[in-house]
Amino acid sequence: VAEGARERLIETLEPVHPADIADFIEQIGPVERRNLLTLWGPQIDADFLFELEEGVRDEVMEILSPEQIAVAVQERDTDDLVYLVEDMEEEAQEAVLDALDEADRVAVEQSLQYPEDSAGRLMQRHVVTAPQHWTVGDAIDFMRASDDLPDQFYDIVIIDPRHKPVGEVRLGKIMATPRWVKLADMMEEGLRTIPVDQTSADVAYAFNQYHMIQAPVVDENGRLVGVITIDDAMDVLEDEAEEDMMRLAGLGAEEEITDSVWETTRQRFPWLGVNLITAVFASIVISFFEDTIAAIVALAVLMPIVASMGGNAGTQSLTVAVRALATRDLTGSNAYRVVRREVLAGLLNGLAFAVIIGVVGVIWFGSPMLGVVLGISMVINMVVAGLAGILIPIGLEKAGADPALASGAFVTTVTDVVGFFSFLGLAGWLLL
Amino acid sequence: VAEGARERLIETLEPVHPADIADFIEQIGPVERRNLLTLWGPQIDADFLFELEEGVRDEVMEILSPEQIAVAVQERDTDDLVYLVEDMEEEAQEAVLDALDEADRVAVEQSLQYPEDSAGRLMQRHVVTAPQHWTVGDAIDFMRASDDLPDQFYDIVIIDPRHKPVGEVRLGKIMATPRWVKLADMMEEGLRTIPVDQTSADVAYAFNQYHMIQAPVVDENGRLVGVITIDDAMDVLEDEAEEDMMRLAGLGAEEEITDSVWETTRQRFPWLGVNLITAVFASIVISFFEDTIAAIVALAVLMPIVASMGGNAGTQSLTVAVRALATRDLTGSNAYRVVRREVLAGLLNGLAFAVIIGVVGVIWFGSPMLGVVLGISMVINMVVAGLAGILIPIGLEKAGADPALASGAFVTTVTDVVGFFSFLGLAGWLLL
Repeated sequence: VAEGARERLIETLEPVHPADIADFIEQIGPVERRNLLTLWGPQIDADFLFELEEGVRDEVMEILSPEQIAVAVQERDTDDLVYLVEDMEEEAQEAVLDALDEADRVAVEQSLQYPEDSAGRLMQRHVVTAPQHWTVGDAIDFMRASDDLPDQFYDIVIIDPRHKPVGEVRLGKIMATPRWVKLADMMEEGLRTIPVDQTSADVAYAFNQYHMIQAPVVDENGRLVGVITIDDAMDVLEDEAEEDMMRLAGLGAEEEITDSVWETTRQRFPWLGVNLITAVFASIVISFFEDTIAAIVALAVLMPIVASMGGNAGTQSLTVAVRALATRDLTGSNAYRVVRREVLAGLLNGLAFAVIIGVVGVIWFGSPMLGVVLGISMVINMVVAGLAGILIPIGLEKAGADPALASGAFVTTVTDVVGFFSFLGLAGWLLL
Repeated sequence: VAEGARERLIETLEPVHPADIADFIEQIGPVERRNLLTLWGPQIDADFLFELEEGVRDEVMEILSPEQIAVAVQERDTDDLVYLVEDMEEEAQEAVLDALDEADRVAVEQSLQYPEDSAGRLMQRHVVTAPQHWTVGDAIDFMRASDDLPDQFYDIVIIDPRHKPVGEVRLGKIMATPRWVKLADMMEEGLRTIPVDQTSADVAYAFNQYHMIQAPVVDENGRLVGVITIDDAMDVLEDEAEEDMMRLAGLGAEEEITDSVWETTRQRFPWLGVNLITAVFASIVISFFEDTIAAIVALAVLMPIVASMGGNAGTQSLTVAVRALATRDLTGSNAYRVVRREVLAGLLNGLAFAVIIGVVGVIWFGSPMLGVVLGISMVINMVVAGLAGILIPIGLEKAGADPALASGAFVTTVTDVVGFFSFLGLAGWLLL
């Protein structure tokens, strides 16, 4: 290894934010990755570990020495540490835990006891608290005397003698208030505590809905066990939206742009398999009408139009429904109104496109009756599309399933089957 | 109006968070909405205005009196006010602006001068600043003397004599530090300022990438003009993800669950129109092979399978690409590797499904050659799907267009055309 190259590399990377270094490491290939880390060598600043996605991080963990990992993980807040290790393989997890001081290690191990995707995994264990009788002056003196405050905290949590949170006071407010004022007299209105076993999706919803910056986390007895800050909620919120988008397209929520060809192929196979089954199902419907098609080949030319329009209209309704369920804008109190809207919008657009495609059919094939068949089946399929697009995700949600997961396959199956059946069926009845 | 009912309503709503009141108002129908607000009457707490989506908010603005609006908008931070009024019709906007005190009105009007979706619209104008020579004690005394600090601030911005930000000091750090320490000696590392004309998407990216809580906004001369906080960035980030999801499904980014049937129909029409054109295009391709289909009707039964599998595989690649472009995980440095991955994954899944569907074809129709034709066209279409799914969004991004906007139509057109053409073309060549 040329020492000059190493020095230049260290000099180049020194001012770069760990998140940008992580992006760079993700975007280069595996061989270049190993070369870079080897060249960087013993003085590596492995802060970027916290910013890497899982696959690449596992690769990098195997290259780094225990000492390099130790330097990166000390002095980090416990929520960051939990995020780092929770999906690691056992060996790598041990390597990180061993590098922590006793208090941090215990805190991280305790957090890992809570279920995945729960508030217990998101929270920072180290909370700045004050008893109810403290004044602003007491709080300031306490903080000045303390030598390891968390990196990120925005409120002081006020607790009662049984360690239950009774309120929060914003730092900005403390600083703007004379020393003698009691903290209990300046608490924010409407304290919202988070149960430690609440799902992270619910936590993110609460932060977003109520514009929270920080919230105390409590155990089943209402005692303070940690605190969640807005940055953690922001990560969850983004992941949730991404997950819905990926699932609607039939992708695993875990799929990453750095996955290998083989992983990508394997992850996409199941959904394509589901789609194959639904496509064969649609083909079976078509096969009922082989005689009709043999008599009028124009039907084979036109039938994908009806199915495709229904599929698109269904996907529109479905996406609106999945998103509205995720943001909780679609609930029992407006479900009827939304279903009605989707069906009527399907009907209106169905009528509009029935006229357009009917005219196209007449001009193209010179058969007015063919235009009528096209138009009627278009209306039928687009109404059904609106209905299926909204009812299927609502049904899945009611059944406790993820509405984004399988709705797409169900909805397009319905629109394909109804599209082919209504078009070919009507054609057989009216044209033969 | 029964006074008893009014009192009970006020009592019920009093402890409810404005965001939840807004959700309730959105979920009931227009008539119930008007009745509720009328019953609530003069003592209405219109804080929920800031939480309503645009359509319902416009409706509510017409019901509320200027006095009710005035109470709700006073004492709010300027970024909230800009968010409230920026999409309002002129008359309603005037009503809000007139209710503000002079300083706030000027600040809001100045923010509205900046382009839509820019940092200038997101920022809070009221910033807590300190000159470089101040100590912790100076800052605390200043804040104690000040009577209108912003609701939300987490850092004090340190400015030089020309009003340029030189650093930020966290509130938590100030409180933990003795009075005599100079602020300039305790600034956070790596100050990131945001140009006032930066797009809100770029602002959200920076907050997410660099885990920022607050960032100073500067004008073209580098002078401080405002500050953006993480909660604003969180809103933008969620909107961006939602927008991509909606656009991929052919929905307007503006569509809301509370839109009327007519608005919904009108907003979905254009994309369905685009889809009709592409579907007709696919039909034209099929019409080239009318003679082939007339000879072997089984082709009409099976052809949707090839097109549908290609469409799904293309949508998978497309969604990955659109998401990765949005999060900037797909860049010039890994584009080649990702394109190669998509094509190879398409090839491998194409081969797997070619075997499966080939066997199905043979069993179903008893023709080995038909199975071969199905298999070959499946491989071709899935490779093309991978290629189109990744290259089309990259191309749109390079051309300065939104990759989520039109990619879906392009990709499915490609997979339909290639699917029908390869299957029917091969069938005509090998089976007739």
